[in-house]
Amino acid sequence: MAKKLTSRSENYSQWYNELVAKAGLAETSAVRGCMVIKPYGFAIWEKMQAELDRMFKETGHQNAYFPLFIPKSFFSKEADHVEGFAKECAVVTHYRLMNDPNGNGVVVDPSAKLEEELIVRPTSETIIWNTYKNWIQSYRDLPLLVNQWANVVRWEMRTRMFLRTAEFLWQEGHTAHATREEAVKETKTILGVYTDFAQNFLGIPVIRGVKTENERFAGALDTYTIEMLMQDGKALQGGTSHFLGQNFAKAFDVTFANKEGKQDYVWASSWGVTTRLIGALIMTHSDDNGLVLPPSLAPIQVAIVPIYRKDEELAAISEKAEEIVAKLRAKGISVKFDDDNTKKPGWKFAEYEMKGVPVRLGMGPRDLENGTIEVARRDTLTKETREIENVDVYVEELLKEIQKSLFSKAETFRNEHITKVDTYDEFKEVLKTKGGFVLAHWDGTVETEKQIKTETKATIRCIPLNNEEEEGKCIVTGKPSKQRVLMAVAY
Amino acid sequence: MAKKLTSRSENYSQWYNELVAKAGLAETSAVRGCMVIKPYGFAIWEKMQAELDRMFKETGHQNAYFPLFIPKSFFSKEADHVEGFAKECAVVTHYRLMNDPNGNGVVVDPSAKLEEELIVRPTSETIIWNTYKNWIQSYRDLPLLVNQWANVVRWEMRTRMFLRTAEFLWQEGHTAHATREEAVKETKTILGVYTDFAQNFLGIPVIRGVKTENERFAGALDTYTIEMLMQDGKALQGGTSHFLGQNFAKAFDVTFANKEGKQDYVWASSWGVTTRLIGALIMTHSDDNGLVLPPSLAPIQVAIVPIYRKDEELAAISEKAEEIVAKLRAKGISVKFDDDNTKKPGWKFAEYEMKGVPVRLGMGPRDLENGTIEVARRDTLTKETREIENVDVYVEELLKEIQKSLFSKAETFRNEHITKVDTYDEFKEVLKTKGGFVLAHWDGTVETEKQIKTETKATIRCIPLNNEEEEGKCIVTGKPSKQRVLMAVAY
Repeated sequence: MAKKLTSRSENYSQWYNELVAKAGLAETSAVRGCMVIKPYGFAIWEKMQAELDRMFKETGHQNAYFPLFIPKSFFSKEADHVEGFAKECAVVTHYRLMNDPNGNGVVVDPSAKLEEELIVRPTSETIIWNTYKNWIQSYRDLPLLVNQWANVVRWEMRTRMFLRTAEFLWQEGHTAHATREEAVKETKTILGVYTDFAQNFLGIPVIRGVKTENERFAGALDTYTIEMLMQDGKALQGGTSHFLGQNFAKAFDVTFANKEGKQDYVWASSWGVTTRLIGALIMTHSDDNGLVLPPSLAPIQVAIVPIYRKDEELAAISEKAEEIVAKLRAKGISVKFDDDNTKKPGWKFAEYEMKGVPVRLGMGPRDLENGTIEVARRDTLTKETREIENVDVYVEELLKEIQKSLFSKAETFRNEHITKVDTYDEFKEVLKTKGGFVLAHWDGTVETEKQIKTETKATIRCIPLNNEEEEGKCIVTGKPSKQRVLMAVAY
Repeated sequence: MAKKLTSRSENYSQWYNELVAKAGLAETSAVRGCMVIKPYGFAIWEKMQAELDRMFKETGHQNAYFPLFIPKSFFSKEADHVEGFAKECAVVTHYRLMNDPNGNGVVVDPSAKLEEELIVRPTSETIIWNTYKNWIQSYRDLPLLVNQWANVVRWEMRTRMFLRTAEFLWQEGHTAHATREEAVKETKTILGVYTDFAQNFLGIPVIRGVKTENERFAGALDTYTIEMLMQDGKALQGGTSHFLGQNFAKAFDVTFANKEGKQDYVWASSWGVTTRLIGALIMTHSDDNGLVLPPSLAPIQVAIVPIYRKDEELAAISEKAEEIVAKLRAKGISVKFDDDNTKKPGWKFAEYEMKGVPVRLGMGPRDLENGTIEVARRDTLTKETREIENVDVYVEELLKEIQKSLFSKAETFRNEHITKVDTYDEFKEVLKTKGGFVLAHWDGTVETEKQIKTETKATIRCIPLNNEEEEGKCIVTGKPSKQRVLMAVAY
């Protein structure tokens, strides 16, 4: 029952893997690269989904569902998309199994070969724009603001739970507009939604920016991103919103009659976030004792643990605890009163710590006598004894405080890990010793960008929005530059 | 803009297809057999999901997510499962595309062949029980009450929107228990959930029963079902709940230490409903003017249409309408005030009829003068003029009334279409002329069951729960029978 994790300082990557397993979030499956998201991990994803879905609907979007499979030929239609997009895909070639004539279970029926192979969607721009062709005739049909919650597959060779898996869950928005301006505005609206969601719901500070041409989504004219910083100093791309111009409309011949009655190609955006955000969540807030969850995302926000020896003690504690449970639930707070008598309080404390339950209340016979209760905070690991009277009001405020506090702590850490450097040596040194984001001048060429990546593994995460203009020289080539860009080694 | 549907009496199947298209529910896609669920259709599915999910959680279930792919060898592990389960599956054989050396887009990379083919899940018993092996050691780990919302693929040759598609959406519950009794109880609990959901939420009356051996799920010891009757006299299986015994535990070697410390195989259930319920919904309530939706499922419950010529009239109507909108929303009712000035009121009336909006309110300048409003019911197509004062209270009650009324109407129709017959001639005659469910004696053999199916297309839908005992003779063989079974031609 020893649940202790490898410490982060000892081995960050091992700490992460152990935490994912021991907090009951996910595990590997019998299918290479595919994970099983366990009930506790899935409950966190459901909370993310519910909040994002609410935000999407509030900004006028509707959900729909498009096929899992995409005809192979669709990938060739948008030139940049096929060139730039990874070709590691799951390919369906047959549609029937048959009993093995030799009696060894089932085999693929060779006669059931598809005329054209089907690709399990790695993203759905192509099949969706092929569909939009029938939905859009006139400017009156626009804008079309559609989102899809779905599973997608990209045949990754090196996988990590949540961060990079062959199959993952995500939402993908695909919108269609009458003008360039509207499509760009939508792309930015969603970047705003993602920022709000990440910062105020996940408690993860982000830097918003635009990707370089080299890091852009295949087929996009501009890719906007929210960049996060993990505790180990590596960056993580939290979500992207793409302005696609008329590229997919041209590839799938989607035109509309504008207000003047003239035919024009439709303007597009697409955007998505994935189950990878659970990885970001873990690597932003958690500690050597286990998961730390912002209250907004915690499947259980408050756990109440009775401490007792005799049944009469439990009965008395339970009576009082149930009152608190009722009051907290009335405030919309999710509470678990854990009177499981097969487990000791110490075991439960460790378990709720591992699972990141934000607030733990402990009650023993002496508390009952004194009218007190122990309140433990998961994020700070601090405990205090409070009067039992109105503890529900206190806990409600405490949950808000924890939500804010997690964000500020992460923000402070992130801000302390943005370093301005002016030479390539300094750049390498910072990456090696301190990690984090580095702001440096770059000459704007793909060659230099690639050289930096090859030599240091760092990539340009983004050109931050509202970036300060500053004359300088590229840290690699010494060529003139007008602004610093945000670089880091990334997940 | 002619939106008129083929009438049901003229061609039921064409009526159905046209309704699905014109109400904006779904359409075919570029991938054979896969449908696109359009925003309005998906909004109905989301309402079904939300309610079922609430009911599952209330009965102690948690959601999780398992891989989309299943190793081919898993299908051979449970003998009945592989024998009985349709072998029409999507088979993934390769994991990479490459640029065509001849320059024609992309082709499958022949060097990227999987060692073992992967099957896109047609159902997940095998991969889930392979996972449960690691989750269950002792009776303390039981019961395990897990549900998954997912897409599944069965390569159907003849497809119909919602009713039978190659890819469909569903939920699949997979539970594990320490005893046979608990697993059976769970199977029945879910049958109760499905019944409650179908009758009180979808407004569809069901007959609960158990399937014959021949119609059982492959690998199950008992399959419970809810059977529905469509307007054209054909039956539709609305959902099934399977008692799986220890079959999958034995196939995947899932054992546990019971309270006495002895090892035993785990007992199982599985159960699911699918997007096919949208088809059932359409074919239970809708009419020749379009969709009819129970208020519980309607994405828009009330539409308010202003009738006006001049802008001042619209302004005055809008002011009053916004008051009503606010009052209805405060009651949790979803309302749309449709002041789109590019469409005429008559067009809007037809549109809301086609989309099955339960209540439509119409307001013109004369209504304003008189303090009245027109209230139109979609289900009965009746209209009445009411005082505008407190119309929100009236509408709230009316929605409840419509919900009940749709169920009773469907129940009356269903009850009128249950016919007892005592001879095979009578049986055939009823199927040919009246349709619906037929209650008849059957000798209990698979041979007779198959003969009936071959000769009449009718199948035994179920042996109803709490079936009346009655001595009789099989309508085909004349052999003795102790009860009547429920038969019908089914979707």
